[in-house]
Amino acid sequence: MSFNTFGRVFRFTSWGESHGPAIGAVVDGCPPGLALGEADIQTWLDRRRPGASDLTSRRREPDRVRILSGVFEGRTTGAPISLVIDNEDARPADYAPSAAVFRPGHADYAYQAKYGHRDWRGGGRASARETAARVAAGAVARLVIPEVAIRAEVTEIGGDPDEGRWPDLIERARAEGNSLGAIVECQALGVPPGWGAPVYAKLDAELAAAIMSINAVKAVEIGDGFAAARLSGERNADEMRPGAAGPDFLSNHAGGITGGISTGQRIVLRAAFKPTSSIGKPLATIDTRGDAAEISVNGRHDPCVGIRGVHVVEAMVALVLADHKLLHRAQCGRDG
Amino acid sequence: MSFNTFGRVFRFTSWGESHGPAIGAVVDGCPPGLALGEADIQTWLDRRRPGASDLTSRRREPDRVRILSGVFEGRTTGAPISLVIDNEDARPADYAPSAAVFRPGHADYAYQAKYGHRDWRGGGRASARETAARVAAGAVARLVIPEVAIRAEVTEIGGDPDEGRWPDLIERARAEGNSLGAIVECQALGVPPGWGAPVYAKLDAELAAAIMSINAVKAVEIGDGFAAARLSGERNADEMRPGAAGPDFLSNHAGGITGGISTGQRIVLRAAFKPTSSIGKPLATIDTRGDAAEISVNGRHDPCVGIRGVHVVEAMVALVLADHKLLHRAQCGRDG
Amino acid sequence: MSFNTFGRVFRFTSWGESHGPAIGAVVDGCPPGLALGEADIQTWLDRRRPGASDLTSRRREPDRVRILSGVFEGRTTGAPISLVIDNEDARPADYAPSAAVFRPGHADYAYQAKYGHRDWRGGGRASARETAARVAAGAVARLVIPEVAIRAEVTEIGGDPDEGRWPDLIERARAEGNSLGAIVECQALGVPPGWGAPVYAKLDAELAAAIMSINAVKAVEIGDGFAAARLSGERNADEMRPGAAGPDFLSNHAGGITGGISTGQRIVLRAAFKPTSSIGKPLATIDTRGDAAEISVNGRHDPCVGIRGVHVVEAMVALVLADHKLLHRAQCGRDG
Amino acid sequence: MSFNTFGRVFRFTSWGESHGPAIGAVVDGCPPGLALGEADIQTWLDRRRPGASDLTSRRREPDRVRILSGVFEGRTTGAPISLVIDNEDARPADYAPSAAVFRPGHADYAYQAKYGHRDWRGGGRASARETAARVAAGAVARLVIPEVAIRAEVTEIGGDPDEGRWPDLIERARAEGNSLGAIVECQALGVPPGWGAPVYAKLDAELAAAIMSINAVKAVEIGDGFAAARLSGERNADEMRPGAAGPDFLSNHAGGITGGISTGQRIVLRAAFKPTSSIGKPLATIDTRGDAAEISVNGRHDPCVGIRGVHVVEAMVALVLADHKLLHRAQCGRDG
Repeated sequence: MSFNTFGRVFRFTSWGESHGPAIGAVVDGCPPGLALGEADIQTWLDRRRPGASDLTSRRREPDRVRILSGVFEGRTTGAPISLVIDNEDARPADYAPSAAVFRPGHADYAYQAKYGHRDWRGGGRASARETAARVAAGAVARLVIPEVAIRAEVTEIGGDPDEGRWPDLIERARAEGNSLGAIVECQALGVPPGWGAPVYAKLDAELAAAIMSINAVKAVEIGDGFAAARLSGERNADEMRPGAAGPDFLSNHAGGITGGISTGQRIVLRAAFKPTSSIGKPLATIDTRGDAAEISVNGRHDPCVGIRGVHVVEAMVALVLADHKLLHRAQCGRDG
Repeated sequence: MSFNTFGRVFRFTSWGESHGPAIGAVVDGCPPGLALGEADIQTWLDRRRPGASDLTSRRREPDRVRILSGVFEGRTTGAPISLVIDNEDARPADYAPSAAVFRPGHADYAYQAKYGHRDWRGGGRASARETAARVAAGAVARLVIPEVAIRAEVTEIGGDPDEGRWPDLIERARAEGNSLGAIVECQALGVPPGWGAPVYAKLDAELAAAIMSINAVKAVEIGDGFAAARLSGERNADEMRPGAAGPDFLSNHAGGITGGISTGQRIVLRAAFKPTSSIGKPLATIDTRGDAAEISVNGRHDPCVGIRGVHVVEAMVALVLADHKLLHRAQCGRDG
Repeated sequence: MSFNTFGRVFRFTSWGESHGPAIGAVVDGCPPGLALGEADIQTWLDRRRPGASDLTSRRREPDRVRILSGVFEGRTTGAPISLVIDNEDARPADYAPSAAVFRPGHADYAYQAKYGHRDWRGGGRASARETAARVAAGAVARLVIPEVAIRAEVTEIGGDPDEGRWPDLIERARAEGNSLGAIVECQALGVPPGWGAPVYAKLDAELAAAIMSINAVKAVEIGDGFAAARLSGERNADEMRPGAAGPDFLSNHAGGITGGISTGQRIVLRAAFKPTSSIGKPLATIDTRGDAAEISVNGRHDPCVGIRGVHVVEAMVALVLADHKLLHRAQCGRDG
Repeated sequence: MSFNTFGRVFRFTSWGESHGPAIGAVVDGCPPGLALGEADIQTWLDRRRPGASDLTSRRREPDRVRILSGVFEGRTTGAPISLVIDNEDARPADYAPSAAVFRPGHADYAYQAKYGHRDWRGGGRASARETAARVAAGAVARLVIPEVAIRAEVTEIGGDPDEGRWPDLIERARAEGNSLGAIVECQALGVPPGWGAPVYAKLDAELAAAIMSINAVKAVEIGDGFAAARLSGERNADEMRPGAAGPDFLSNHAGGITGGISTGQRIVLRAAFKPTSSIGKPLATIDTRGDAAEISVNGRHDPCVGIRGVHVVEAMVALVLADHKLLHRAQCGRDG
């Protein structure tokens, strides 16, 4: 995992800026012989796509993926799979104000401080648009772990767990030029016991990194997470009784992972997405010369980035699990 | 970061089991010329040491570190630094019951499922004893980042933020054969803007992995973390005004990191430690043959592992920051 | 360095098959602020390009590179640089015979044995066409090390060091449906003392891997190489006398590297390229069912791949040196 | 592979200086359940041990290895295996002259230039003593690849292939305070087709790096190596005919590897060891202040380091093959 590459054996490298000509990913280490066509990836991109719902960004990107390598006669060859998605609805002019002014909550200032030179168009490399590359790579990862079903969903928006109130909350935020945070929960079923590794390759540590690397995520929990810190040891214990194959666990406070290794229970994690940083309300900031400035961002932004984050969370979980399945196989000589 | 190695340029490899002859770490990529003696490491190990406080484990380990390489005439040479800590108060016989029975909440079952063969003495490799190696390596990391002050503390035990009540809570838990979780907060001051990197080497992603890799940690927050998901975009914005060198931020909801890169504000993170899994109360479980069993663990365990976790959290933060300082220097040619 | 990724801090990932739609490379970890346009890369691709000389392959590829990310307003941003080169003169039909028959000396059989499914068109991923991606990435690497001049040249073709006889040798080989090997020597001037690292990141070890990873290379020498094994210690010693800045070396048997670290002398290495495996003469082989077969390859192949290998050798040397400059800077805090 | 760590999935980290208290290696990623005791490692160390033959160094090191972790009840657990070898016959005083004077051919000057501070005792980290750690780690690697037999031997000393003359050559060199180079050839039998990977993880590229990382090695050949560059394509072709399982190859110019992947033939490589740099004859050099100096080294050095290099070559080949077996298994789901 180095800068723009994620994973060890099953790995991918992502590239591209929000308003450049295209974004993409190169998936390396994929097992050969898997049936893979563009449609297998497109189906996941379509779900993440902006403009797919009234609740999300109004940027209209078809997000059409092309496979440029690594697949021959409909099956993977084991060679790197190059995935490219053209940027079609780029409107860099919308972002001209952010050329000279650092948007609060965005990477603008940090990138400027680090690199001295940055692509300010729509956040450039720091844009959530990069997550389309993750979803595309994640679609390939899913093929590597057919035994696993991954399912994420929003469980809270703006602090409210009542799904019925979300459309109103979001419309109000959009109308006010404001935005909302969200909690996303993800479960993975079918992971056999034994995936993961001590000590710095713990499955939960890698999941935490994968999820925290998603734009706007500020917290990650495994299993009961923070709530576990408030339980007694007795209450938090996942007792076992004899089961058909291995133990039957009486509870799953641990979220399916102990000692960094899967137990065979369902893996459960939650991510906290901060509210979208791009809002219409005016905010105090400074410009690139260091002078005081004010900015209100009128782009086509999601009022709640967590909603589309669901698909990115799923993709990252798939990518971690695919890598660990192969790592487990490497060291232990079997899949589960 | 591969299995038992952590970091990219400044990296360390840890080894050893709870009741083997010794544990240790090899620190690689350390800059040359740093003054380093065993006392520089010992001071941090002494803080983490079991038996140092009434609130922690009664295992008595001197945790005396020896430096076997990489230092010459009192200064680092740039060669790998081998650190060894002998295990002296090992009492493997205490753990004989766990040879045949899987302790709930521990790695026992997961390790057995993965490896088929495990060192069951005190949790073997999965023991929190391994964290002494991290603290030792972290002491070296601190020398690489003298500009940074790292300070962690317990902010909650058993759900209670009132420090005055903690001794009673802990004694009660110990008396009952029960245990408590804790929240640890860590701050790092003095990190200049510009450390970290997109996209999979984000500073917050790496911190999350580092912290989640610590035994018993089940959740990590950066800045406001989960609370940020419940704020509006307006409330969560960290506005800026002109400052002496770069911006003055009016708040720090982000915890000092945006876009995965430090902003120059203090870095703030929190970790949730689950309650110690080894408790005296009897728990239902299975044995290695798959039959029903009951276990109550009478070792010399911390009733609240989060307390000693403070020192491990600090060490891991130091290790991540040292690595990212060097990575930033590599790519951008300067320290800040 | 993992499968299709090369390097540690300055790294690139290559993708693409000989007769797929395109090939490319993603360069990651590049310092920001470097002036970079497509022309800076094109100039090097043009030299490697097939069809550029009578002595090389007659495939006509314009090898036009496009930069899809990582550059903004003519300068690198520190984000990954995606380089794409379309395949235009692909004639997969030429390769239909190799679908069912393993070409001796090629990767055909090994790929089939490993992956079970392979892109047989022109060697697919194993084609020398992949080296265009290296040359493109190498062009970026050169910008990172402006202090270094890299110059490779053919010193021997078909065992003959006399340049004047090479055109005839090659024409004869082509006419006979045969092919020739070559020796390429590369020198790098301007590398300061101090690049490289013990023990498994030795500069010479990394150069050896880089060069040996080039198609058709079967041997690598540093400095005197095999000849050093035939000298006495006294004859092989590179004595020193006081110089303007550091030592003046009286000889350079070591090829500019001792202990895996550059000495400031010119770096000298040599690579042996085997003769092109694709020849018109009929060869005994087997087909994919295991039956006996005969094959003579009538493509548009270089009769001596070493000639175009010159540019690939230079690129790989640049890639290694750029990475090691940044690694040295990371650990030691200075460029030289 | 980062500085002092070698390998990807099966990996080891080496540490220690020639005249420090000990040297060692941490082997990570080892499959669990392998029978491993200190004797399994000692047997290989004993062969490499200085003082084992009249032809080698007279330093008397028992090279007694201790296993400090990763093995329980005689079998590997999958946890890191810490191997330690104490330095017993260290005589740092012998090396006092090299504190102030750079020995030609050694890493002294390069280390000083890089790090500014170095352990000059016996070459410190750059000493061939480090190779004992490789041999120890290699002994573990051999257990991972029981299907493979690795056998290296010296084929040439001082340019002379006639074994009968070597004792005289060496004694003469020793008497004259001179030294000799050597060629070592290594063969690996039993490697199935399919190990290795494109493009930067080619099996031959990794072998080249592994071998070139050994002290004093200046060149590596795979198969016919440089001789292949002097053959025609017709002569160099390894033709095939139908065999019992896969092809029968009619020759093995390629040395068992095509396209970076094993073919099932025996793997053949050769390494050129330069003559020992430490010689008794006086050589011109400079001291650490930059002034002219003369040095003649009277240690207990091997007159021909290539002889003991045989065991290191074997170890490095085992380490590369073990890693690639596991990598192949990871990606392709089977061992061969």
